[in-house]
Amino acid sequence: MDFSTVHCSIARTFAVLSDPWSALIVRDLAVGIHRFDELVGDLGISRKILTARLATLLEHEIVERQPYQQNPPRYDYVLTEQGRELMPILYAAMSWGDRWRDGNAGPPALLRHRDHTAAAVVVCSECGEPMTLDDTVGQHGPGGRRARGTGLIGSHLHGPVPG
Amino acid sequence: MDFSTVHCSIARTFAVLSDPWSALIVRDLAVGIHRFDELVGDLGISRKILTARLATLLEHEIVERQPYQQNPPRYDYVLTEQGRELMPILYAAMSWGDRWRDGNAGPPALLRHRDHTAAAVVVCSECGEPMTLDDTVGQHGPGGRRARGTGLIGSHLHGPVPG
Repeated sequence: MDFSTVHCSIARTFAVLSDPWSALIVRDLAVGIHRFDELVGDLGISRKILTARLATLLEHEIVERQPYQQNPPRYDYVLTEQGRELMPILYAAMSWGDRWRDGNAGPPALLRHRDHTAAAVVVCSECGEPMTLDDTVGQHGPGGRRARGTGLIGSHLHGPVPG
Repeated sequence: MDFSTVHCSIARTFAVLSDPWSALIVRDLAVGIHRFDELVGDLGISRKILTARLATLLEHEIVERQPYQQNPPRYDYVLTEQGRELMPILYAAMSWGDRWRDGNAGPPALLRHRDHTAAAVVVCSECGEPMTLDDTVGQHGPGGRRARGTGLIGSHLHGPVPG
């Protein structure tokens, strides 16, 4: 299943963040762990799986390579602009984990935004209030289609169907 | 690899949202698609994979079953409180997909928050400003450990190491 072809922006984002390794690779690049061997050392991931995940992230233009040595060629892996913009999703994921999975030891890490320790909150771009399932619904959008991954959901969305 | 045991709240959240199917099942339950056969019809997922993903979501207490028929037993699958609280993460993922993966057709669906069409923005709980990689860093937390999944990241986090 190629989730990048599903007519759903959630599916397309999770085509990129397709498993926990991918999320942790993005996390590591964001904090400054840029080299293959360092990623192996941090994550305890096999070299084969890391190679495959990096290839997918390169293909999706989440990551790019910057050569730091020519012979033999060696690369730093860095986040692209769209890769950097995944981080707020990971901050929201981190705050969910802090709330529901802290395992009695307290949060493994804290987020520091500017000069304050903070949690990430997902809010509405228009009114600034938190967006929760209680006050948020999905509406039909112009790119919606009935297809695999969205076979029935159209009848559960609100508002007019675009012509 | 059991990501729920990694000393990282991002890893623990992605232990739950561990592949695109899991995210799409949570999406469907949130919009009111509650039955096994409807999930199959919407997602085009195999019954075997859906059974496995629902079992994992039940085990993680993201989903619970409510019987709607006794003989043979049949269940509605509904989100628990912690499952409902995953939705803001999916809203943030949806807005990223709308921005970076709209495929020229426009967004497949829109978010309606109360009475306005909106995007999801991840902001700081303290100041209300967007949290981005430019102004957010990770700090040591009390539950941090050097272990698989966090082997080196400690040296990239900020602030004092908890005693």
